[in-house]
Amino acid sequence: MGRIKTSENFSRKNIILNKAAALFKEKGYQAASMRDLAEIVGVEAASLYNHIKSKNDLLNEICFKVANKYNQKLSNIEAENSTCLSKIESLLRFHIQEMVENFEEVFVSDREWKHLTEPYLTNFQTQRKTYRKRFAAMIDAGIKNKEIKKIDSTTAVLIMLHAISGIESWHRSKQKISGKALEESMITILVGGLKK
Amino acid sequence: MGRIKTSENFSRKNIILNKAAALFKEKGYQAASMRDLAEIVGVEAASLYNHIKSKNDLLNEICFKVANKYNQKLSNIEAENSTCLSKIESLLRFHIQEMVENFEEVFVSDREWKHLTEPYLTNFQTQRKTYRKRFAAMIDAGIKNKEIKKIDSTTAVLIMLHAISGIESWHRSKQKISGKALEESMITILVGGLKK
Repeated sequence: MGRIKTSENFSRKNIILNKAAALFKEKGYQAASMRDLAEIVGVEAASLYNHIKSKNDLLNEICFKVANKYNQKLSNIEAENSTCLSKIESLLRFHIQEMVENFEEVFVSDREWKHLTEPYLTNFQTQRKTYRKRFAAMIDAGIKNKEIKKIDSTTAVLIMLHAISGIESWHRSKQKISGKALEESMITILVGGLKK
Repeated sequence: MGRIKTSENFSRKNIILNKAAALFKEKGYQAASMRDLAEIVGVEAASLYNHIKSKNDLLNEICFKVANKYNQKLSNIEAENSTCLSKIESLLRFHIQEMVENFEEVFVSDREWKHLTEPYLTNFQTQRKTYRKRFAAMIDAGIKNKEIKKIDSTTAVLIMLHAISGIESWHRSKQKISGKALEESMITILVGGLKK
């Protein structure tokens, strides 16, 4: 494809990242090769390196891009002037929508981050822990002000996040309800389960 | 260890199955070798073959043993003379307890069954689908008689099973609540979320 104009670089890079997420999801990070990626993108393997340094660099970009989006959303929700339950509902809806609409990159950042290398690995792992603690703190605040049943907040976070990560099997199912109907059923059960 | 008396064969076989489940969980079925297993059991690799035919045979035994236990429990619960919600609660408590107490074999049968070979693969997959349908039917019955909120029962099953399979991360966590406390929090949220 020859030299690329700078104005096209951003979108070309995004295409590469999207295709890489799809490839890593499909084959797993370890089994996927830059040759596979070049084939899917439709370029020579060598020309991929105009945009990214390495396969591991792609994983970094996917994981940290997803982390930014989730951290930003969590901060926005924490700052809202509303009940704990409605904050939790907003956060869950966001998680569900991301799993429905941006499945591949979310899946990769959730399952393949273990293949990050240092210092990114430790940094990402710490961010995951912090995120879960902030989520649990939202639940604890709701327990304290009697919006939410007395439960172990860490377990509640575990339930919520694993239930949502189960949307993977919704993607694989042949006869599936709409993403919106899925979201409503999940919210009914999960938020309903917390509510005092 | 020489020739084994028949009376000891049963328990020796059980030990091998337990160690195999632990090994498959730890390394993954594909990466685990009979040599690894022999080392863990503390025998020569050759003597393992007095008890089992092959690595794949071990996976069969683990998966179908777990399937038997779950199918039996589901049938017993279906036959109970009680409300749909209390049946669902019993089934969820059983799933949670199995994930807490018999984690390794349950984990292997849930995650590694894809490595079964035909005719077992298709058979096992069909059993999984049937099990989920019977679980969903229990929820639909509860919706019909107004014990349970109007939700998509397939989504409800997805949420329940994935939330419970998340007990994997409870096993990995350093500071964890007791299995019993975990069970109570999960039941509170999950059964509470269904209840009308």
